[in-house]
Amino acid sequence: MAVDYATFELGDFTLQRGATLRGAKLAYKTFGELNAAKDNVIVYPTWYSGQHYDNEWLIGEGMALDPAKYFIIIPNMLGNGLSSSPSNTPEPYNASRFPKVTAYDNVRAQHKLVTELFGISHIRLVVGWSMGALQTFHWGAMYPDMMDLLAPFCGSAKCSRHNFVFLEGVKAALTADAAFLDGWYTDKPAKGLRAAARVYAGWGFSQAFYRAELDLTAMGYSSLEDFLVGFWEGFFLPKDANNLLTMLWTWQNGDISDNDLYKGDFQAALAAIKARTFVMPGQTDLYFPPEDSASEVAGMPNAELIPVPSIWGHFAGGPGTNPEDVRFLDRKLRELLAS
Amino acid sequence: MAVDYATFELGDFTLQRGATLRGAKLAYKTFGELNAAKDNVIVYPTWYSGQHYDNEWLIGEGMALDPAKYFIIIPNMLGNGLSSSPSNTPEPYNASRFPKVTAYDNVRAQHKLVTELFGISHIRLVVGWSMGALQTFHWGAMYPDMMDLLAPFCGSAKCSRHNFVFLEGVKAALTADAAFLDGWYTDKPAKGLRAAARVYAGWGFSQAFYRAELDLTAMGYSSLEDFLVGFWEGFFLPKDANNLLTMLWTWQNGDISDNDLYKGDFQAALAAIKARTFVMPGQTDLYFPPEDSASEVAGMPNAELIPVPSIWGHFAGGPGTNPEDVRFLDRKLRELLAS
Repeated sequence: MAVDYATFELGDFTLQRGATLRGAKLAYKTFGELNAAKDNVIVYPTWYSGQHYDNEWLIGEGMALDPAKYFIIIPNMLGNGLSSSPSNTPEPYNASRFPKVTAYDNVRAQHKLVTELFGISHIRLVVGWSMGALQTFHWGAMYPDMMDLLAPFCGSAKCSRHNFVFLEGVKAALTADAAFLDGWYTDKPAKGLRAAARVYAGWGFSQAFYRAELDLTAMGYSSLEDFLVGFWEGFFLPKDANNLLTMLWTWQNGDISDNDLYKGDFQAALAAIKARTFVMPGQTDLYFPPEDSASEVAGMPNAELIPVPSIWGHFAGGPGTNPEDVRFLDRKLRELLAS
Repeated sequence: MAVDYATFELGDFTLQRGATLRGAKLAYKTFGELNAAKDNVIVYPTWYSGQHYDNEWLIGEGMALDPAKYFIIIPNMLGNGLSSSPSNTPEPYNASRFPKVTAYDNVRAQHKLVTELFGISHIRLVVGWSMGALQTFHWGAMYPDMMDLLAPFCGSAKCSRHNFVFLEGVKAALTADAAFLDGWYTDKPAKGLRAAARVYAGWGFSQAFYRAELDLTAMGYSSLEDFLVGFWEGFFLPKDANNLLTMLWTWQNGDISDNDLYKGDFQAALAAIKARTFVMPGQTDLYFPPEDSASEVAGMPNAELIPVPSIWGHFAGGPGTNPEDVRFLDRKLRELLAS
């Protein structure tokens, strides 16, 4: 089968928690051309369960992320089914035995891609939604001299305790299905995937979204149950359960200071981020509430808090679901790139 | 085994959705003495999965709900394990075949208890937390001439769409466990109960609660995981799965207008509530957000919105978990009863 993306061989890639992924792969897609000065680079990591396809809504001619101007690299997160993941890694590190991967590991892999494959030493902008924002923050803290700008939206530099708990619920629902077989399923644990989807449904969109019935009017579902089955279960069912759990662990353990650079000093890691940063939480995001972003911005020397004025909850940030929010984000990214 | 509560025989009790519970039982407990004028009555329904024991924190000498002054009746909700429930109803309506019960059914049963057993024709106050608030609203709309005061806190007159979705997540997690056996389990579906508990954990308390680590400092758990196991799983595991699902259905289908009186006209039902009412949402409640209460108050002729200033989320309202919130509620109830 022809693929429309490329794969970078990471080789034997030793992870932060100790395992080595032999023959590790980083799938990526690029848009636009790298200019001669190699100074038109945008890195745009993927989000929880998303693949590079699911990032494309923010890229386009005439948009801030314009491939006519920029060389845009979308690296796929480890565990997302395209880069090395439980679902595509050969024995013995396959399936349930796929190792723990941190956001630090992801960004280190992406740094190898950017520097070794493309010979890029400077990045104009790193931008990302949700877990893409987590990776964006990691870029800023791990390679503070390497980029001009950061735009993490609807995400955090460290998984909050409440966010951790929300994810525990998703995980518990998924793994309550006996068909999950501790990760050694051959048939997918559909009941668990559907349950995880229903748990997620209350978190993904805000109370105000449901109150306004945007699932019906804006998204076109025929009933609330149709939205739960058609959108949410339909979203989770095609995904591999072990992949979802790998990325969930990455999310829960996200922390820009949990590494040798900062040794757990979260404030030091925030303070080290030099890039001009627009931190853009969704105003009604239930798991990345603006208060968390505000407290992170307070610790960053060059950051600005720009809440996305939206009742779409976490989906204020993506994946292109609400055109008005896309326009807002695009306008802010344009402003940031013009600076 | 001696019990510390009484049981009212409802006889053959035909439910709103068509089934008849033969030999239906309403368990209740009273505090204080009914005076000669029978005008010192407070009705105080229970909440989701709670039993009358779990309501006692708001009752006490010198408190607003003072048994030295008032005759306080706590009726146990149908499905809560003491009143007729899947777990205690004989065949054929036992277990998974226990019929759908509405809040309307519950309040009609409570009305029988109050009028037929005690000969009470007037109630001073109906008060309740969460699903107790749902029943409180129902009292106001179903028997608008019967009481002076209402105090629903952290609850609503109609289950919002978002609240419905949150409960879908809880239900999906519980029933994803194959041991649930479509409700015909003999051994309890412990994995499903634990999963439901973990889903609930993110909803019960607010983001700010977890941010402030009140699970550790105020509640004394030794870690977040200890809180999830010790408090949340410990809370759900002793409960019967079918009972939980019965009450969950009651909750999801709560609506003061869904009956012959109002025929679905929610605004008419709100407008019919004559009692002076303090509607007290928790300021940070994630499933009964203050916005929903505000819109209900706007439709009630004699209601006041009094948010509970607390970061305890839904638990701002009970069950007596945070002493400061208890004092706030008690003060407001005193004010209401003095009017």
